Amino acid sequence: MSKRTEISTLGHFGLIDRLTDNLETRNSSTVLGVGDDAAVIDVGDHYLLISTELLHEGVHFDLTYFPLKHLGYKVVVAAASDIIAMNGRPTQLTVSLGISARFAVEHLEELYEGIKAACKEYAIDLVGGDTTASTNGLTIGVTAVGEVAKDRLVRRSGAKENDLVCLTSDLGAAYMGLHLLERERIALDGHPNPNPDFKGHEYILRRWLKPDLRTDIIKALEAEGVVPTSMIDITDGLASDALQLCRASGCGMRLYLERIPIAAETRAMADELNADPIVAMLNGGDDFELLFTVPLEMRDKVLHFGGIDVIGHVTKRGCVLVTPEGGEIPLTAPGFAHREE
Amino acid sequence: MSKRTEISTLGHFGLIDRLTDNLETRNSSTVLGVGDDAAVIDVGDHYLLISTELLHEGVHFDLTYFPLKHLGYKVVVAAASDIIAMNGRPTQLTVSLGISARFAVEHLEELYEGIKAACKEYAIDLVGGDTTASTNGLTIGVTAVGEVAKDRLVRRSGAKENDLVCLTSDLGAAYMGLHLLERERIALDGHPNPNPDFKGHEYILRRWLKPDLRTDIIKALEAEGVVPTSMIDITDGLASDALQLCRASGCGMRLYLERIPIAAETRAMADELNADPIVAMLNGGDDFELLFTVPLEMRDKVLHFGGIDVIGHVTKRGCVLVTPEGGEIPLTAPGFAHREE
Repeated sequence: MSKRTEISTLGHFGLIDRLTDNLETRNSSTVLGVGDDAAVIDVGDHYLLISTELLHEGVHFDLTYFPLKHLGYKVVVAAASDIIAMNGRPTQLTVSLGISARFAVEHLEELYEGIKAACKEYAIDLVGGDTTASTNGLTIGVTAVGEVAKDRLVRRSGAKENDLVCLTSDLGAAYMGLHLLERERIALDGHPNPNPDFKGHEYILRRWLKPDLRTDIIKALEAEGVVPTSMIDITDGLASDALQLCRASGCGMRLYLERIPIAAETRAMADELNADPIVAMLNGGDDFELLFTVPLEMRDKVLHFGGIDVIGHVTKRGCVLVTPEGGEIPLTAPGFAHREE
Repeated sequence: MSKRTEISTLGHFGLIDRLTDNLETRNSSTVLGVGDDAAVIDVGDHYLLISTELLHEGVHFDLTYFPLKHLGYKVVVAAASDIIAMNGRPTQLTVSLGISARFAVEHLEELYEGIKAACKEYAIDLVGGDTTASTNGLTIGVTAVGEVAKDRLVRRSGAKENDLVCLTSDLGAAYMGLHLLERERIALDGHPNPNPDFKGHEYILRRWLKPDLRTDIIKALEAEGVVPTSMIDITDGLASDALQLCRASGCGMRLYLERIPIAAETRAMADELNADPIVAMLNGGDDFELLFTVPLEMRDKVLHFGGIDVIGHVTKRGCVLVTPEGGEIPLTAPGFAHREE
């Protein structure tokens, strides 16, 4: 290997593009491969959806303040959320663990308690579980499987000009929950009996530690006979995920800042930490809410669900945030380096 | 957590048993969960198979002597082999990578070259690929998907007394290939221009670096109209995998040492390294060959394939290796601690 190209010069999405360039399809059952929230396999009368995640201790989670039981729960939500984002119903899950010598059986039982609790909550079957040794902390590999009727599959790529952009909840709460936990960790570091006071912060902590899987939205869409033209789940932050959706659909978006909901607790914690609540909302991530587009005439049906906000509309090109004063801020996000036109 | 039980006291399989105890099934499509080579999902007119692997640098592979391209190839074979072991046809694959800063884009391209080569060789579609940061080396998560006709699914659990035990090739070659590479690594450590001489060792190196996926056996079984009563792929070594099959089937096995094939190159390398070829054969692993059982009357059909050996038969209980002198050695394997009755 004579040349060395740093991964950072391509960005996360540029790297994926480069590695998975020119992939051939050899099986007629393969409907959709790399490039959406989940892969789509034609199994006859419906589609099967598959999505996979890899999480490393020290990169994706910090066990100092993330209880193992909550981690197990969240890992299930994170993996199954990719199935939801295709308008599917999560049905099965496999979990692979890489475990260093630091962990005892009881630790893994705690983790599995959370995994099983989330599986029960969302009627998902845990069908595979393997463990292996790791030299460095805990690694978690999760694969989620789901199903969707062929005429209800939603990709990232179907947004059309003038479609409405819908959002299923307030954003940035999980991110501020994380920051609160980090502040307490630093403040109590070395304390023999740490006892952080989390009163009044229950909502942001819950959004970080025990997020909801929006199966309710998928059911509501079906009950109302609505099939979004495009959909993505918000995991990297609204900015990054909106950009991905626009890129896949070959369109732009105008999002109106004052229409994007933010919880009072999120705003208060941002103030307390001297952080910008708009950054939390746009780039925080781990919200596991859905961003989807519907034709204009679906407006009343969608608003009828309750809890859904229309935060903007689809344009020809350019992804911008419109401020209350009418200013336009182009959306940007990490990982998009050297990729956007 | 007041109690600390070391994982080693349960053994690998005991740990899985404990973690996945009392799993409930909530979806009627879930046919088979934890406990076989792959999970089985009913998708209507056939079964879908899913299996997942997690591999860590420094535990499962050493990049000092495992070229990335070969690693990519082998990872596909390892994951898809679990689909083969259920008598299925591998169709799709997802790969997740955890990457530390040591790796450049070119490294990952090499790895993907091997992944794509194996996918091409065995007509598998790469449908998902994600990358994430890791603090420590390379982590690879692979999920293989496959399909099997409902009347052709083979589990580990169907072996019956008096069935013949069949094996698809010689064993221990991959293990001796690994040992050869390790010897050369130590011998050439610090050498400015290492140039190991591998002449005459091509077979054992190939078995370690570029193993075969036995799709040919699955096709032959179908062509001859044979459905094995049970099957497993040999990844942990014949002893461990035979014990797993017996445990799942609630039976025993008598395997005849002189009937288990071992290649001349494997034996020669064992001699050269003062290693026991029987240990390589029984406990080496990474062979990716198939161990399966068929009713006595299938003997001629199976032998008609070519390259298959009948190495023993199924008994009521007790897994033993019979020596040429008629002695009986109980099969044992790591990971079975505190689990076998």
